[in-house]
Amino acid sequence: MTNKIRTIHYGLGSIGSGIARLVAQRASLEIVGGIDVDEQKVGKDMGKVIGLGQTLGLRVSSNSAAVFSQTEADVVLHSTGSYVEQVRPQLIEIIEAGLNVVSTCEELAYPQAQYPALAEELDTLARKHAVTLLGTGVNPGFAQDTIAIAASGVCQDVKHITVTRTVEAGERRLPLQKKVGAGLTVAEFEEKARKREIRHVGLEESATMVAHALGWQLDKVEETMEPVIAEKPLKTQFVEVKEGQVSGIHQVARGFKDDQELIVLHLYMHIGAENPGDSVVIEGTPDIELTIKGIHGDLATAAMAVNAVPKVVNAPPGLMTMKDLPLVCPWLGD
Amino acid sequence: MTNKIRTIHYGLGSIGSGIARLVAQRASLEIVGGIDVDEQKVGKDMGKVIGLGQTLGLRVSSNSAAVFSQTEADVVLHSTGSYVEQVRPQLIEIIEAGLNVVSTCEELAYPQAQYPALAEELDTLARKHAVTLLGTGVNPGFAQDTIAIAASGVCQDVKHITVTRTVEAGERRLPLQKKVGAGLTVAEFEEKARKREIRHVGLEESATMVAHALGWQLDKVEETMEPVIAEKPLKTQFVEVKEGQVSGIHQVARGFKDDQELIVLHLYMHIGAENPGDSVVIEGTPDIELTIKGIHGDLATAAMAVNAVPKVVNAPPGLMTMKDLPLVCPWLGD
Repeated sequence: MTNKIRTIHYGLGSIGSGIARLVAQRASLEIVGGIDVDEQKVGKDMGKVIGLGQTLGLRVSSNSAAVFSQTEADVVLHSTGSYVEQVRPQLIEIIEAGLNVVSTCEELAYPQAQYPALAEELDTLARKHAVTLLGTGVNPGFAQDTIAIAASGVCQDVKHITVTRTVEAGERRLPLQKKVGAGLTVAEFEEKARKREIRHVGLEESATMVAHALGWQLDKVEETMEPVIAEKPLKTQFVEVKEGQVSGIHQVARGFKDDQELIVLHLYMHIGAENPGDSVVIEGTPDIELTIKGIHGDLATAAMAVNAVPKVVNAPPGLMTMKDLPLVCPWLGD
Repeated sequence: MTNKIRTIHYGLGSIGSGIARLVAQRASLEIVGGIDVDEQKVGKDMGKVIGLGQTLGLRVSSNSAAVFSQTEADVVLHSTGSYVEQVRPQLIEIIEAGLNVVSTCEELAYPQAQYPALAEELDTLARKHAVTLLGTGVNPGFAQDTIAIAASGVCQDVKHITVTRTVEAGERRLPLQKKVGAGLTVAEFEEKARKREIRHVGLEESATMVAHALGWQLDKVEETMEPVIAEKPLKTQFVEVKEGQVSGIHQVARGFKDDQELIVLHLYMHIGAENPGDSVVIEGTPDIELTIKGIHGDLATAAMAVNAVPKVVNAPPGLMTMKDLPLVCPWLGD
C-alpha cells in the first residue's frame, strides 16, 4: 500500500483505546480523528487519552458531525456499544458521511441473526453511500464463528458443530470480571442476569453466522446462562470471590433445524478457569477437532478490528460479515 | 441458491474422481461434463468412471474443445497435474472458453511464488474473459497456508510462523506412498529426489502466500527434503518397508527476509507417522498455537475444491488465491 489508510476512532474506552494504540503502530494506517463523549477526554490530546505514551497532535472531540465533515478519512473504527439498535444512529451518521466502518458492536457481527430488518436497512444505506460496514472482534468475530467456518473447509459434509471457548476472567479487565458476575451471590447474579447486566453479547450472532455460512437455515437459537460457582476462595487484582459465590458464567447457544441441534456454542468466562482456550469439534466427513491456545481477549478484539481495516476498505459496498470478507490477518508491510 | 452451479470435470484420476463424487452429492451443484485422456475412461458413463455407484447419463470425452463449446457450464474443476507450466495450455483453453476454474494444480495455489509472469498472464486473461481462477486443495490450499493466515487474525504483531503437517502415509493411496518414497533404499530415494520424482509440490507456494498475506516480501524461500528412515519393519496395504529403508519424507521450506527466517513449514509424510495432525505456532503479540486433528488428505482436497466453487463463481474476475477469497466452507443448502 502506498497511501496510508486514514482512521477516525469513535469511542475511546478500553477497547477503542486499544484499537487506536494498535493503529498508531501500523505503518500502513494513520489516525486522523478521535471522538468520545466523556468530558474527561474531550479536548485532550488523543495520544494521552489512549495511553500511547506520546502525543498525537490531535484533540479528542465530542462532536462527531464536525469531525466527519472536517476530516479526510477512509474508515471509522467504532467502539461505543454492544447493541446494534442502540448504536444505529451513530452507524447511520458515519455511513451518510461516506465513511467505511469497522465496529466492535457485538450484535453488528451478524445483525441478520436478531435484527434482519435493521441489517437490510444498514446494507441498503451502505450501498447507497458506497461504503462498507463490518462488525468484528474476538468473539463474536473469530473464536466462536470465523475459525469454525474456516475449519469446516476441509469437510465434505458437516452434521454438527460444537464450539467451546474458556476464558480465565481473572486475567482480564475489571469491567469484564464485573460483566461475568464475579463475586456476586447466586441471588444477586440471577437478579442481574434477568436485567441483562450480566451476559456475553454475541453467541446468537456467532451461531447464526456459522449456520448461514454452511447453508443451514436455523428454526431457532436457544440461549441459556448459568453461574459458575467457586468451589474455593478466589482472588484477582480486582475482585475477591468466596467459596459458594459466583466466579463467572457458562453461557450456551444452541441452533436447531427441524428440532435437531446442528450447532452448540459453549462460553465459559470465569475466575479460576482451568485450561483456558478455544476448540471447534466438527462431526462430519471427516470429523475435525481444532484447538487454539493463546488468544487474548482484549488484544485480539483490537487486532481483529485493525486487521480488518484494509479488507473493509477494499471490499465492495454494503453490510459485510466475517463470512463474506477475505481472511483477516495483520498487514505488517508499509 | 436457486440455480444449480454447473460443473465440468477436467481430469478424472483419483483426486478428480473424488471431486466429482462430492459434486454429485451436493444439491446446489450439477455435473454437466467430464474430460479425461485415458482411453480406458473415454466414452464410458462418467458415473461409472468416477466410482459413483450409479450412472450419470453423461459420457467422458477426451475432446476438451468440444465439451467446452457444446456444454452450458459455470465452472471447470481441473485436476490434471501439479505443475502450472505444464497445465498452462489447459487453463488458457478453459479461460478462453469463458469458464471459471477451480484447480488442484499445486503450483496454481500461489503461482506468484515461482512464476510471477505466468501468474500475471493468467490474471490478465481471466479478467479479459470475466472469469475467476483458483488453485486450492488441502495442501497447498489449507493446512500450511490458509489456516495459518486465519490464526494470525487475532495477533497484533507476528514475528515468526511455524507450520507443521504430519501425514500418516500408510493410510493413504498407493500413489501417495510411492510419491514419498516408501520402501526405497536411501540411495534409490536420493536418485529419485534428484529427478524430482519424490517430492511434495506446494511448500514454497504456501510459505509465499502466508508471507504476502502478512505484507512480508521474502528475499528467498529455501526448500530441503530428507528421507525418514524406518527404525523397524513397516507394512501397509500396498508397501513393505524394511528397517533402514525409507518410510517417507521430511520436507522443509524456510522463508527469509534480510537473512532472518520469518516462516518455516515442516511436512512429514511417511509410513508409521506418530501423532498425525497439523499445527500452527505463531510467535507474536500474543503467541498463538493452533492444532487440528482429523484432516484427511484426499477427502480434504476434494472438499476444498468443491467448497470453493460457489466462492469462485461469485468472485470478481481474475486469478484468485485462498488469501483473497471469503472463507471456504461447505455449502449444504439447496
